[in-house]
Amino acid sequence: MARRLPTIGDVARAASVSRQTVSNVLNSPEIVRAQTRARVEAAIAELGYRPHAAARRLRTRRASTIAVRLDPFVGGISGAVLDRFLHALTERAEAKGLSVMLYTATDAADEIRQFRRLVDGAVVDAFVLAATYYGDPRTEWLIEHGQPFVTFGRPWGIADLSDPLHFWVDVDGRAGVRDAVARLRETGAQQIGFLGWPAGSGTGDERRAGWAAALRESGIGDSELVRLTVESEDGVAEARAATRKLLAQASDLDAIIAASDTLALGVLIETAGALPVVGFDNTPVAEAIGFSSIDQRVDEVAAAALELLDLVGHAEAGGPGGHRLIAPDVIMRAQGPALGLVG
Amino acid sequence: MARRLPTIGDVARAASVSRQTVSNVLNSPEIVRAQTRARVEAAIAELGYRPHAAARRLRTRRASTIAVRLDPFVGGISGAVLDRFLHALTERAEAKGLSVMLYTATDAADEIRQFRRLVDGAVVDAFVLAATYYGDPRTEWLIEHGQPFVTFGRPWGIADLSDPLHFWVDVDGRAGVRDAVARLRETGAQQIGFLGWPAGSGTGDERRAGWAAALRESGIGDSELVRLTVESEDGVAEARAATRKLLAQASDLDAIIAASDTLALGVLIETAGALPVVGFDNTPVAEAIGFSSIDQRVDEVAAAALELLDLVGHAEAGGPGGHRLIAPDVIMRAQGPALGLVG
Repeated sequence: MARRLPTIGDVARAASVSRQTVSNVLNSPEIVRAQTRARVEAAIAELGYRPHAAARRLRTRRASTIAVRLDPFVGGISGAVLDRFLHALTERAEAKGLSVMLYTATDAADEIRQFRRLVDGAVVDAFVLAATYYGDPRTEWLIEHGQPFVTFGRPWGIADLSDPLHFWVDVDGRAGVRDAVARLRETGAQQIGFLGWPAGSGTGDERRAGWAAALRESGIGDSELVRLTVESEDGVAEARAATRKLLAQASDLDAIIAASDTLALGVLIETAGALPVVGFDNTPVAEAIGFSSIDQRVDEVAAAALELLDLVGHAEAGGPGGHRLIAPDVIMRAQGPALGLVG
Repeated sequence: MARRLPTIGDVARAASVSRQTVSNVLNSPEIVRAQTRARVEAAIAELGYRPHAAARRLRTRRASTIAVRLDPFVGGISGAVLDRFLHALTERAEAKGLSVMLYTATDAADEIRQFRRLVDGAVVDAFVLAATYYGDPRTEWLIEHGQPFVTFGRPWGIADLSDPLHFWVDVDGRAGVRDAVARLRETGAQQIGFLGWPAGSGTGDERRAGWAAALRESGIGDSELVRLTVESEDGVAEARAATRKLLAQASDLDAIIAASDTLALGVLIETAGALPVVGFDNTPVAEAIGFSSIDQRVDEVAAAALELLDLVGHAEAGGPGGHRLIAPDVIMRAQGPALGLVG
């Protein structure tokens, strides 16, 4: 087996510093103490570390392949957004001469085993990861091993969102929900509630924050915010129960924004369509039944992911950084009068 | 460039016979006239034609890759079944050490260009095609060029469904709809209508045929069958209009079977949930809203497709043949009372 190329982790260990410090030396040397910088630079020279060796390989190979994880089909309404992203990515990749290779994984540890297999087999040249989360060990591994990658999803929990080692594209759910509040107000709604996921998911918390920010701007206080929102797991039955709870504590609601189309469907069924609702993801269900929803514009997300892959390894210290935050679209639909559907 | 390997088409041209005749000589020589057989065998020997050279390559290569076409996301409810199939195929392929590579194509001619690119680049070892149709030129090309493939979808319009050169797996939509009629009768329904796609699509015609066969068995005549069915394009609005037409000509209906969940949703909205409906594909929408639907069991389809890929090139004359017809599941759900949803 060929000798393993040194990683950023090897440099960090040799210099007795953190990986972040090595990253800083490479990208923002002015913020690192001179003594530390000298130690890191010595370790880099000694080990022969080359940042993004694999990124250069990506640009020089003629037939390039991107690996994308495809999860088991889990049912439900909202999961379709990642399928839509895959469709858009595959089409746009092909237009750039890139192919998409799929892999599966049962958990993060298994996914890292898959990274190893794909990298060792020289089968793929870059990774596109979706659904990042707090403390995601996958991006850590890819950075450590100099593999080019882009994530659909920001690096949750990392203070420096412009880390030049982590290129990402994400949808600004906070801005989307804020816009939805404004659009509902244009239709005359005054009391606007929020049906969200339990706290702790990055995307769900951002969506709730957009709603809270819009309400605070119009002078609504914290205790009132608490009254106007409830949490629910992402299922139709759970959303119906949560809607009953929400209406019990806030019978004056004019409209509800939900963190997903699944939750929105629960609101719709529970209220017999009487209360305007805005979901999230603009799924085929929202289109077919006819209710408002926030569209993630996955086609733009795919385009941005591929643009960023071109840039991996080219990031300049102090440059614009390798990330894109896409503003979603609020798709308003006229919700018909109650007509009777199911119980 | 390497000399092109002779194809079955080259043999057919050299012997002045059809491709089917060459296939027959290879697989069912007893049905071919002795004189013709001799001419074909001479051409095979002269050209050095080896059937399924690529199939043998598939079995000897260690890292094998299957190509699957991924179409642009078109919205709608029913398209999700091919995404579900892709998820199942990717998982099961990986368990067998196979990877899935995606490609896109704008039409059949473009798809054949993609075949050529993938074959010339030695990028993939076999193809899994979905959505076969009458006069499908893609399978013709793959057979002609000795490329191992399996289709999800039978070879529509080909009389010999057990052609040893075309391995396929399909879902028995006719049996599924027949079962649905029986299940609806168990619930007390007597007059069961059918909302189908316009005639001419293989899958749609099979589904309608299952309904018609079940009704004929209980003594219902042809003119009555005409009264109990209408056609609709696959959209919710179109299905609502078609439902009005169907109920105008058959106000005595107890239940409706629809060729898709999209059509079923149109029935459901138009009838305010009052009439039991059975859709097709058991989509997330059917599950979330709660109506009956026929499930294609795509996981079994994926398993069968991979089993068949193992067999490509091993088909024996007079053997069991390389195809599987999967019986779908009728998922019956209690449709709640009208509760009011949208207009």
